[in-house]
Amino acid sequence: MLEMNNYSKVGVVGVTGYAGRELLRRLAAHPGVELVAAMSGARTAEPVDVAELAPAYRGTLRIQPPDVAAMLASGAEMVFLATPAEVSTAWVEALSQPRVIDLSGAYRFNNAAVYGWPEKNREAIRSARLVANPGCYATAANIALWPLLQAGVIAAENVICDAKSGASGAGRGLRDDLHFVELASNCKAYGVYTHRHAPEIALQTGVDLSSFAFSPHLLPTERGILATHYVSLNNPDLAATYERAYAGHPFVRLRGARLPELNDVAGTNFCDLGWVVRADGRQAVVVSCLDNLVKGAAGQAIQNFNLMTGWAEETALL
Amino acid sequence: MLEMNNYSKVGVVGVTGYAGRELLRRLAAHPGVELVAAMSGARTAEPVDVAELAPAYRGTLRIQPPDVAAMLASGAEMVFLATPAEVSTAWVEALSQPRVIDLSGAYRFNNAAVYGWPEKNREAIRSARLVANPGCYATAANIALWPLLQAGVIAAENVICDAKSGASGAGRGLRDDLHFVELASNCKAYGVYTHRHAPEIALQTGVDLSSFAFSPHLLPTERGILATHYVSLNNPDLAATYERAYAGHPFVRLRGARLPELNDVAGTNFCDLGWVVRADGRQAVVVSCLDNLVKGAAGQAIQNFNLMTGWAEETALL
Amino acid sequence: MLEMNNYSKVGVVGVTGYAGRELLRRLAAHPGVELVAAMSGARTAEPVDVAELAPAYRGTLRIQPPDVAAMLASGAEMVFLATPAEVSTAWVEALSQPRVIDLSGAYRFNNAAVYGWPEKNREAIRSARLVANPGCYATAANIALWPLLQAGVIAAENVICDAKSGASGAGRGLRDDLHFVELASNCKAYGVYTHRHAPEIALQTGVDLSSFAFSPHLLPTERGILATHYVSLNNPDLAATYERAYAGHPFVRLRGARLPELNDVAGTNFCDLGWVVRADGRQAVVVSCLDNLVKGAAGQAIQNFNLMTGWAEETALL
Amino acid sequence: MLEMNNYSKVGVVGVTGYAGRELLRRLAAHPGVELVAAMSGARTAEPVDVAELAPAYRGTLRIQPPDVAAMLASGAEMVFLATPAEVSTAWVEALSQPRVIDLSGAYRFNNAAVYGWPEKNREAIRSARLVANPGCYATAANIALWPLLQAGVIAAENVICDAKSGASGAGRGLRDDLHFVELASNCKAYGVYTHRHAPEIALQTGVDLSSFAFSPHLLPTERGILATHYVSLNNPDLAATYERAYAGHPFVRLRGARLPELNDVAGTNFCDLGWVVRADGRQAVVVSCLDNLVKGAAGQAIQNFNLMTGWAEETALL
Repeated sequence: MLEMNNYSKVGVVGVTGYAGRELLRRLAAHPGVELVAAMSGARTAEPVDVAELAPAYRGTLRIQPPDVAAMLASGAEMVFLATPAEVSTAWVEALSQPRVIDLSGAYRFNNAAVYGWPEKNREAIRSARLVANPGCYATAANIALWPLLQAGVIAAENVICDAKSGASGAGRGLRDDLHFVELASNCKAYGVYTHRHAPEIALQTGVDLSSFAFSPHLLPTERGILATHYVSLNNPDLAATYERAYAGHPFVRLRGARLPELNDVAGTNFCDLGWVVRADGRQAVVVSCLDNLVKGAAGQAIQNFNLMTGWAEETALL
Repeated sequence: MLEMNNYSKVGVVGVTGYAGRELLRRLAAHPGVELVAAMSGARTAEPVDVAELAPAYRGTLRIQPPDVAAMLASGAEMVFLATPAEVSTAWVEALSQPRVIDLSGAYRFNNAAVYGWPEKNREAIRSARLVANPGCYATAANIALWPLLQAGVIAAENVICDAKSGASGAGRGLRDDLHFVELASNCKAYGVYTHRHAPEIALQTGVDLSSFAFSPHLLPTERGILATHYVSLNNPDLAATYERAYAGHPFVRLRGARLPELNDVAGTNFCDLGWVVRADGRQAVVVSCLDNLVKGAAGQAIQNFNLMTGWAEETALL
Repeated sequence: MLEMNNYSKVGVVGVTGYAGRELLRRLAAHPGVELVAAMSGARTAEPVDVAELAPAYRGTLRIQPPDVAAMLASGAEMVFLATPAEVSTAWVEALSQPRVIDLSGAYRFNNAAVYGWPEKNREAIRSARLVANPGCYATAANIALWPLLQAGVIAAENVICDAKSGASGAGRGLRDDLHFVELASNCKAYGVYTHRHAPEIALQTGVDLSSFAFSPHLLPTERGILATHYVSLNNPDLAATYERAYAGHPFVRLRGARLPELNDVAGTNFCDLGWVVRADGRQAVVVSCLDNLVKGAAGQAIQNFNLMTGWAEETALL
Repeated sequence: MLEMNNYSKVGVVGVTGYAGRELLRRLAAHPGVELVAAMSGARTAEPVDVAELAPAYRGTLRIQPPDVAAMLASGAEMVFLATPAEVSTAWVEALSQPRVIDLSGAYRFNNAAVYGWPEKNREAIRSARLVANPGCYATAANIALWPLLQAGVIAAENVICDAKSGASGAGRGLRDDLHFVELASNCKAYGVYTHRHAPEIALQTGVDLSSFAFSPHLLPTERGILATHYVSLNNPDLAATYERAYAGHPFVRLRGARLPELNDVAGTNFCDLGWVVRADGRQAVVVSCLDNLVKGAAGQAIQNFNLMTGWAEETALL
């Protein structure tokens, strides 16, 4: 199963957040990873065993407060930053030695980093020193839209993405609208026309930002993003276009008219795509679906790690 | 509080379904209603007290199997049919005497009935003998779209309605996808371009059906519909248009940029509307929100009853 | 339906909490209540219409900051305190004129107040100036245990109450364990042997506190308490004992072997009781079930109001 | 990580049920397993890729209808039966060659099988030909009660287990009470004093069945069992007793006064134990917590497989 006996010392900053915890758990199953540092600034007065977050570590490591010098001293060759953008910026500026995969939005518009979208940038990722892991919503929209725009199948104007996300996408911070009683029976739109993932999607896919309607909605689920896209068709060759674009890419599954649902991808690194063409062939509804903590965060980060270190892209992800 | 001392003998068929039960409970609080018959064909081997479904009745009435002769014998002057379309058709054909409010889709395209949408057809409803209560999705979309189309504010072509509904909209019947374990963390689109409410919306609002994208989604909630509409603007006067259309209509609340959410309308007969106009003024996102069992079914039925019997429109609905 | 044309000016403090909001909504349907003051200290920078919380008020009243002088000036003859205990204490000390129903725990052990449990203290409540509304868990346990102990049917020692509650019982305050992602798939015990409702139950029912195991659990539901009691039987006459105790009490329903569930009582003021006797007749499992925001808080407060003002006990509660 | 280069051909019957699917997914990560047959009698008109249920298989195997001859022809050396008891009985009688791990209740009271509880029967399991995997509730109660009874720390009489389980414990079959709308806000007790796991627990732990109160409750969660036990203490040495009993057993974690919750064990093979002793030292509340589909079913089955085949007990389970 192992392609090479390559082995990396790895550090993770931000292990107590939802993406950080998911990352720890999946790294524990990776045959090419030795976890040498796990750091968190959040509510950890005293060190706690990493095994509390990811039992496979069995008490061999404690969670430390975030500290660059301690990270360097740990010998980490690869550092995952599951931290807010401003924290990521500080870490990237301080870390000259190790390679970095940053899960925040800090470097997604920055030429110093490779945008860590393996289905588009696989080769550039292999040799990147700094990878900007894509946003969760952006990954769902990028995968649906990019091949269609690139092939001229759809118009760049008036693209609509009506996206629905579970609550872990908003993080562990306490907010009135994330209180169980407020969310358990609720659903709402927010950030319509103003969400920061819209320019990220436009930059990556070629969608015309000025006429792009990106409408995120909060769902009463713990995980998952389902994005429903409405696009004007130049031609109806969605299936062939997607097949060409994603051949050889193990984590995009094409479902055609059997529209994907959250349960199909929960806990996996897959992004599933389904679509229906309007009777007159001039519009399509494209649904993309992924787990925001996996393909939308920690899983895609490990996919990038695999490319950067020469492991098979699926390692620790199936 | 009472406008007149008008009093109706009322019968309900289909009391054990979700809409029927909601109807019973709300009728119990209506000062102008005497419930004289409650019928259900579903899993009621032996008669059960109506009080089991709606405790305010306190054991005064038992649930009977559906029977036209028994309904006529009960003296019912108004019959609510919370039944499947084919059952409604049979009842309407058999009942010549009482007035009927049918919650099914049987008469929504039929000139024999008045379409029971009070915000549009208030006067016609007052004297109707047969009212076709609108569909739940259709009510959410109708209220958002009709004034804008009528006033020429939006184009009739390429209207999009991305609708999300809780599970009670699918009824009490057992289905794999409504099993708790299958739905609790799930969300999915279904019936894209093919749902039977799309022609109902087009007929009522003037939306061009051939280019209308109506995409229902199933939410892991018990109740509620949130419909996100994408419309091309001829002019940006949404606020003024809605204000003109819904002045004097107590159950449509205009929220403007504070987009409504399911919690705002849960358990109420309100339909809330919010909207955001794109920076270039050429598109808007309109969100409408209602409780599918109240404004989308039983509540709107009682609103129609109030109009038909001369009670204030809000009676038993606030 | 009205027994008398008695009419009270009513003030509520704490209207934005879960119990306060429930209280407002139900008071709006009460034919003998004129709401003259609605106050809240929580996150209300600017006054907001009471109609936002309870639409039946239709914009006639605004929420004010808590202020004793303003309450007195409003002419309120009855004040409901849906406030923390320390706030309730301050209000009770300052209010000499109006009668008070306090939903907090401040006066539940205090002879200055009547313990507002209508099934036990109906007569004393009628003339009370200060009523201490019982705790939500306590109401569920009290109703199950008191008649059995009073009749000698069960032993006072080694009583067990394994109680499960939805999240609204913990209030609207933000807490890590009430974050949607933390609670949505969770269940946990807390406060075992130490919860402050245990002495309240012991005081009211005669249970021996030193051997009483009261174990609350947090459920991933918005509302509802289901309390499973394990009691040693002196004799197996539970049914007859309960029937005697609760004859003429409209809000306790006896279910016998058909154990009640949360859905039976959601949104109602009922407390349902079911029980199963062990084959040897020496132990029973008794399940009591109520809505913590209704019979466990706002509904019981209105039941007390009805007794205090001479209205039928069920007014605005069916 | 691998103790030996031992490799087994494995067949699974009942792969589309919740336990069967969990089993498939975890077997895919086991370095000593080659899946050679996956069978299901449920709603599989046409063969479907196993990869639909467990993507790691990547389309190499299709789901077949249940067939003993096909199973034998597959070369399976170990067969997992995730089937109803009567189906398991038929398979066990027909299969003479391969070893069998049966997840049903068919052989839990049968001397022909070893009861597959590794913490008690580790050695016997190693050489067993037929293993009866314990029930999910039984595992939670067994782990809490057995060491205490064996050491004489608690009395065998009047033991109480108030257990709460998520809905997957009831299987995928359609039932009124498992409809999303019926369960999402509900909680109920069922099978009090009569559940079939009570005698299983009594047999394994020494609890006196005639005075044992086993009260299962249905929770609105997909997974998880939390069992709250009330036991009379002969002495208060719970901690020392549990430490002795579970030293060297990797899947029982002792939490002491920090009572475990469902989130601690979700998706893991752990059973966590916590306890609180009453002030007088004569009673304790013991909480045990596990994931019903993992330690309560598929995970424990793999733990048994590991023992039977000489793999480390944790293989594919951390």
